[in-house]
Amino acid sequence: MAAAAAKHFVSDPKTLVRDSIDGLVLANPHLAFDSGQKVVYVKDVGKARTGQVTLFCGGGSGHEPAHAGFVGPGMLTAAVAGHVFASPTSSQVLSCLRRVYSEDHGTLVVIKNYTGDVLNFGRAVERFKSERVNAGHPMPKVAMVVVGDDVGVVNPNDDDEGGVGRRGLAGTVLVNKAAGAMAAAGGALEQVAAMAGYVSEHTFTIGCALNAASVPGQGMPRELEANEIEVGMGIHNEPGFAKRALEPAAALIPALVGHIVGSVPFQRAVAGGRRHVVVLVNNLGAASNLEMGLVTKLAVEATRAAGHDPVRVFSGTYMTGLAMPGASISLLVLPADAAERDALLALVDAPAHCAGWVNHVHAEGASAGDDEAPPAPAAPAAPASDARWERAVESAYQCVVAAEAEVTRLDQLMGDGDCGQVLLSGATAVREAVQATQLPLNDPPAALARISSIVEDSMGGTSGIIYCLFLDGLAQQLRLLAAKEAASLTPQMWGAAMVGALDTLYQYTTARPGHRTLIDALHPFASTLAESGSLHRALDAATEGAAATAQMQPKRGRAVYVQQTEEPVADAGAAGLVSVLKGIVGAL
Amino acid sequence: MAAAAAKHFVSDPKTLVRDSIDGLVLANPHLAFDSGQKVVYVKDVGKARTGQVTLFCGGGSGHEPAHAGFVGPGMLTAAVAGHVFASPTSSQVLSCLRRVYSEDHGTLVVIKNYTGDVLNFGRAVERFKSERVNAGHPMPKVAMVVVGDDVGVVNPNDDDEGGVGRRGLAGTVLVNKAAGAMAAAGGALEQVAAMAGYVSEHTFTIGCALNAASVPGQGMPRELEANEIEVGMGIHNEPGFAKRALEPAAALIPALVGHIVGSVPFQRAVAGGRRHVVVLVNNLGAASNLEMGLVTKLAVEATRAAGHDPVRVFSGTYMTGLAMPGASISLLVLPADAAERDALLALVDAPAHCAGWVNHVHAEGASAGDDEAPPAPAAPAAPASDARWERAVESAYQCVVAAEAEVTRLDQLMGDGDCGQVLLSGATAVREAVQATQLPLNDPPAALARISSIVEDSMGGTSGIIYCLFLDGLAQQLRLLAAKEAASLTPQMWGAAMVGALDTLYQYTTARPGHRTLIDALHPFASTLAESGSLHRALDAATEGAAATAQMQPKRGRAVYVQQTEEPVADAGAAGLVSVLKGIVGAL
Repeated sequence: MAAAAAKHFVSDPKTLVRDSIDGLVLANPHLAFDSGQKVVYVKDVGKARTGQVTLFCGGGSGHEPAHAGFVGPGMLTAAVAGHVFASPTSSQVLSCLRRVYSEDHGTLVVIKNYTGDVLNFGRAVERFKSERVNAGHPMPKVAMVVVGDDVGVVNPNDDDEGGVGRRGLAGTVLVNKAAGAMAAAGGALEQVAAMAGYVSEHTFTIGCALNAASVPGQGMPRELEANEIEVGMGIHNEPGFAKRALEPAAALIPALVGHIVGSVPFQRAVAGGRRHVVVLVNNLGAASNLEMGLVTKLAVEATRAAGHDPVRVFSGTYMTGLAMPGASISLLVLPADAAERDALLALVDAPAHCAGWVNHVHAEGASAGDDEAPPAPAAPAAPASDARWERAVESAYQCVVAAEAEVTRLDQLMGDGDCGQVLLSGATAVREAVQATQLPLNDPPAALARISSIVEDSMGGTSGIIYCLFLDGLAQQLRLLAAKEAASLTPQMWGAAMVGALDTLYQYTTARPGHRTLIDALHPFASTLAESGSLHRALDAATEGAAATAQMQPKRGRAVYVQQTEEPVADAGAAGLVSVLKGIVGAL
Repeated sequence: MAAAAAKHFVSDPKTLVRDSIDGLVLANPHLAFDSGQKVVYVKDVGKARTGQVTLFCGGGSGHEPAHAGFVGPGMLTAAVAGHVFASPTSSQVLSCLRRVYSEDHGTLVVIKNYTGDVLNFGRAVERFKSERVNAGHPMPKVAMVVVGDDVGVVNPNDDDEGGVGRRGLAGTVLVNKAAGAMAAAGGALEQVAAMAGYVSEHTFTIGCALNAASVPGQGMPRELEANEIEVGMGIHNEPGFAKRALEPAAALIPALVGHIVGSVPFQRAVAGGRRHVVVLVNNLGAASNLEMGLVTKLAVEATRAAGHDPVRVFSGTYMTGLAMPGASISLLVLPADAAERDALLALVDAPAHCAGWVNHVHAEGASAGDDEAPPAPAAPAAPASDARWERAVESAYQCVVAAEAEVTRLDQLMGDGDCGQVLLSGATAVREAVQATQLPLNDPPAALARISSIVEDSMGGTSGIIYCLFLDGLAQQLRLLAAKEAASLTPQMWGAAMVGALDTLYQYTTARPGHRTLIDALHPFASTLAESGSLHRALDAATEGAAATAQMQPKRGRAVYVQQTEEPVADAGAAGLVSVLKGIVGAL
């Protein structure tokens, strides 16, 4: 089963990263790709270079959409990709920097705090500076921000003078978002770098995984037990700081938020009364989006319960560890000053045009809104008695009772055996409503609409809804007829209404005459009544139609899935309907 | 392990759907949620009702972002959710329809072709019509489109008169997109419904899964073998039409595309020479995004190879089967008429403001672009001889050779043992470059920049890059000094440049004096030289600094992870650096 978990869509692990980015670029025509250096950049990079501070991010692959998925107007100018879980070389990064460097405005480099990334991106920046000054240019304006938002690992060598520091996780995407929006808005390099630095220093993330992620070509590095999770697992399968038994999300997610808000770096960040936060909930790759909604809800609630005000909530797949079944939660502590806070929020709210950023609609549609309850249906017609209809319902009920054993027998031979009981449930419920004088029997269309809902509630299943849809259509047809013709309804008019109701039904089922269903009784009844105006001839036609189903190949409904019996038997649904029709016709 | 695959972030499976939508709405403030009926709708639904055709979608949960994630300006007005993999009831759908129904423009209902959805949504529409006409209103304008894009299952009861039909899969999202954009643009109900119908009838999808998906509260319905995949698997874990051995994606994906283009419905759709298509590649939930890029590339290439022109490519997570590790590919056949085709493309290109739709930037930035190769670095300084520097390099090499055994011994005691060999590799490569007269030795900053790259290529690893970063900084400092002071460089100036180069290095490493690294030799050398101008005093300081590391607790580098030895030993990296410095000083 470990092997099953390690299945992948892959051809050659060595070319996977290039191939994958080729696919990204095919789907995102605003991107271009230097496949040799694995650098993705906006096609109009020349315009970006002359118009604004440019910025790029990068690191090992396997974290998609990070980082190439965030290249686009309003966010990154470029991204540079290493092998899976491995830093790009300094030569790759240098190639990216040469391509995007803005002579006029300068360039920001954003990376996650991993030794390989820091050294390779750093070396590229210094090589770039050396080659520029050696060629007689002034020292280039390149700033670098190293994001370390992970509060899930405490390194024993961390100290106040600066240890190896915290790892970069999903918070990196918020740094790119804020910096990218500020650069697009015309911010100077110092401002863009300062904003990136602020977000980096004030974002705190913890991850939690239900299992490690398989690496294409390598498989699973390790597997957690069936009831085990890991808190603080890194995005490269690095072990977390604790293994725990899997507990309900309602306990687990608040514990994760508690870990963040209780951490020393978070407490330092909120000192002085900062209480507004941005919450970013990130799918690490293979948690279902259904569950991610729950995680988001619980994370927001826990943040509020901890005394913080989540003024923005982002939820999506931003920074994965391949297909890791897990989630991370990030809290960005906003400035205490309202103007500074609003300025930062405007940056995270600004649209970014790239594949990976989820544009949460904040401003638009967030007005007072229009969420009144659905308009109540028009007041229902008042219940009323009608002796003729009461007789018809009682008669139909008695006929269904009488036919139940035979209908059940037919359905046991060619179906699942519940047809008789289901029909009897419906007949019983309608009869009870009539006996309790709950139906507007003096207004047939209104009465039929009510009966339809009683049938749905009491019968359920497919056969119940087939009855409902016919009754709905019949109610509509009768209402339209009644509006046109003030006189009372003739049998022909009833027949025409039933033919119209069949058209309604046919919108929702492909069953037609000849398919061995109750249609084989209903259709001849309706058409004969419409043509002849004779209820008895119509009933005869329905009875013949039901009998003829014994010779039909099942094409729809329950009998499709059942072996043919040796002796031909009629369709149970058609036989059941005949009992209803027989009762009604007998009473009228 | 089956149990491990069935782990979930969940508290109560019964409330999971409601809780999850609560999370969606928290992250998307343009949405409102009727939790009782599980209806998600745009907050400004009143404005939508008066301004445009409204439209909604729905079905069982577990397919997120479908469908609530597509509610927003430009796409759906609302969505109604059932339990996981189960249709909402007709009462839920009726509640949704009452809420969004536009008196002025009418309403479109889009559903996937599953019996439960068809009957429940159909019943709701007919109930709505009945209650409206029974209340004296005209027949409401409600249209329904049932999407059946699956070509992965051939039902034995399908026939030309219309079988139970194909299932609705990810193509449903394209229907919602086109219809939603047309409604937002002011299209009339007939046009919007016709467009939805066109897209529905001309989109063809096949899915492929590496395994089934676990259902919260229920677990895995079945598991595929370690090397087995299923083609045509449904989004509710329905078995596909074929189990196959997992083959490389380069064979599998073209086979899937071949299945689509070879299917009868597709061939019917392209009859008459239609060859332009939209490709939509969908993550079924738990395929890594890295792999999805590859799948996208291969799907596009296979579509082209089959003679079709993929004028748009969408790639993302649109319609999931919980966390199913799999992907589906959809092809939408565009109209032959260029104007009709452009009209449809404008609808899929239009931005949609919702959580689930990936806004692929098509128009912007898709201009001719600016993808020239990165500007070449300035022409490097010409190689040149310099007897003094040649002597220094040779002397340093000889000292490194002499020290190698001792450096290796120290590193074996407190490290991984490769420090001596790595340093020797670097010294050898630099010596060879000098002997081959490849360096501009008459231009020290240019020569140091070249040496830095030689060191990176020959040494690799962390220690190599530490040297590089220092050499890069040194080159920059010397260039700046040389620009200011025309006279030749004094030893003090070299020392000052080295102190500046340490600042460069310190940007990328937190190692500082006292942390037991080569900094403990490099720092005293630089500062002593800057202060005294004496190379010999500087070398003494470096030698003492290296010796002092024997008494230090390791804080950075290789020794952090190693047990302390009983007898104190000096840091191998510091000892190695001293051998280099000794060689240089001896020659100058």
